[in-house]
Amino acid sequence: MRFLQACRGEALDRPPVWMMRQAGRYLPEYREVRSKVSFLELCRTPELCAKVTLQPIDRFGLDAAILFSDILVVFEAMGVDVEFNPGPVVAQPVRDAAGVAALRWGDPAEEIPYVMDAVRACKAALADRVPLIGFCGAPFTTLSYLVEGRGSRDFENVKGMIFSEPLMFGQLMEKMSDLLGRYLEAQVDAGADALQIFDSWAGALSPRDYAKHVLPHTAALIERVRKTGVPVIFFARGNANLLSLAGGTTADVVGVDWSIGMDHAIETLGAQRVVQGNLDPMLLLGARETLVSRTREVVEQGRVAAGHIFNLGHGISRHTDPEMAKLMIDTVKSMGAS
Amino acid sequence: MRFLQACRGEALDRPPVWMMRQAGRYLPEYREVRSKVSFLELCRTPELCAKVTLQPIDRFGLDAAILFSDILVVFEAMGVDVEFNPGPVVAQPVRDAAGVAALRWGDPAEEIPYVMDAVRACKAALADRVPLIGFCGAPFTTLSYLVEGRGSRDFENVKGMIFSEPLMFGQLMEKMSDLLGRYLEAQVDAGADALQIFDSWAGALSPRDYAKHVLPHTAALIERVRKTGVPVIFFARGNANLLSLAGGTTADVVGVDWSIGMDHAIETLGAQRVVQGNLDPMLLLGARETLVSRTREVVEQGRVAAGHIFNLGHGISRHTDPEMAKLMIDTVKSMGAS
Repeated sequence: MRFLQACRGEALDRPPVWMMRQAGRYLPEYREVRSKVSFLELCRTPELCAKVTLQPIDRFGLDAAILFSDILVVFEAMGVDVEFNPGPVVAQPVRDAAGVAALRWGDPAEEIPYVMDAVRACKAALADRVPLIGFCGAPFTTLSYLVEGRGSRDFENVKGMIFSEPLMFGQLMEKMSDLLGRYLEAQVDAGADALQIFDSWAGALSPRDYAKHVLPHTAALIERVRKTGVPVIFFARGNANLLSLAGGTTADVVGVDWSIGMDHAIETLGAQRVVQGNLDPMLLLGARETLVSRTREVVEQGRVAAGHIFNLGHGISRHTDPEMAKLMIDTVKSMGAS
Repeated sequence: MRFLQACRGEALDRPPVWMMRQAGRYLPEYREVRSKVSFLELCRTPELCAKVTLQPIDRFGLDAAILFSDILVVFEAMGVDVEFNPGPVVAQPVRDAAGVAALRWGDPAEEIPYVMDAVRACKAALADRVPLIGFCGAPFTTLSYLVEGRGSRDFENVKGMIFSEPLMFGQLMEKMSDLLGRYLEAQVDAGADALQIFDSWAGALSPRDYAKHVLPHTAALIERVRKTGVPVIFFARGNANLLSLAGGTTADVVGVDWSIGMDHAIETLGAQRVVQGNLDPMLLLGARETLVSRTREVVEQGRVAAGHIFNLGHGISRHTDPEMAKLMIDTVKSMGAS
């Protein structure tokens, strides 16, 4: 299948295309489902996960599906309560040794089996039309939510921990990486065809601190889950200076956010790498002709790399008109052999 | 004076040091003043502005003072209401042609004379102890607040405007640059010894879009206000890939945020440029020995450049212990000739 071929760096007439957050609020059919259940109920109901996972596949004919879930459901395996109203809120953020000691490090396959059930439900519903991507948050991003308690602008608490208690932070990262490794392995066991690790808050750190305090753990996680045999996509977002560090991991595919030109990104990573990205999702809120020309530009720039999976450089905005998403996707598809 | 010498690239035994947001909530003496007046009242009362502007100078012996004000008071010259609770909120964000047409483009010297009075009050109180830095938000950052209505994570509205109405956006940028130019000229007329232009939300854009839609206006503003004869510092924050673009302006000093190593930043800009920055302010929340070693590292890295003004890579956190700020400042000062 096109998506998996691209992950392996096989030559293709045009890149596969999928969109981060493709199953989501910008789709009326998704909002219809969500009008009846809460976000967490949706995540915990495998049949509904499969339903919304397939919605953008049915509507747009995308080249890959990504499991509908949230990076923070893994907290349930750790004894941590999280609510969504609408952003995630952790009732008791973990900020000291006592908080760390109170954490459980359960087995995701046992503690949140509904995720693996959702993978199976998606696979059954997809019936091999397109591959299914499983995912998790990277250890740093997951820990950041745990320590900050919610989305943050400056990441004062987690950075304060790194700079004041680096050993405690390192131990937390190690445990988190191990738990996430088991989690991703369980998703592959359940049928996931590829994995994406989202380091959504990587940009909170300078390259120096990311390299020292975060990357070794993330690189080890990538190395570990690659042993499952499925391709691993690593996406560290928010600081394009981290790109060369991401390129230093053994990830099969390196995600590229919108903050850097795809040409510059490929130059930084080296043309032997497979890349994924990087159209600015806000272009979907703009003029049609601008969207088409910028989409074509990213596709053309991507041809220089060993492989390119067309995607946005960040999740699609909920204010996007689905017709604009369709225009982008059709533009990518039109660039193949005629 | 050391700060102005550094701006001009003169050789110095150690860099001058000041801190973005040095007059602020982390200081008990500032909170004492603020307990009696609102933030906007403070901005509008020249004697109080001078009082809080001098607080960190008196406490730490910094090498430069920066006018206490806010980049958004300029909205008062545009007929735009802004409140602080505590972040800025614009009651009626400007998102269409009607909103644009309703804007006034008043003369800051006449419409917000209290800022220029505050400059004069600061200069009188400083009595030439250290130079005074005047400032404004860059056109893009100022416009972003106007369009978004508040701080934003994804800048959907302003980016939507750029991508759908680029001509309207360009006209707005031109008018905003002109108004800000008059504003900075008025600050110099009142006595400001240097100017800093804060493009705090520059990181909302990719290098491609920043170069096309933003930089020409900002570069023209820099060029214009340099004619006053005082040094101009340009600080575009949040996307280190914009650094080479910032280096392409005629700013006397280029600000460097914490998302890139100072060594890498100087390599990018070229050693002939004067740089300012770039210690991660979150290091002030960490261990003392880490703060000292990282401070020394930035000073040493900065020696390669034609000039270096030691500063944080972002505003100081309100959770900072002033003793940690003192430790950092004293560390910089100890690195001069003994």
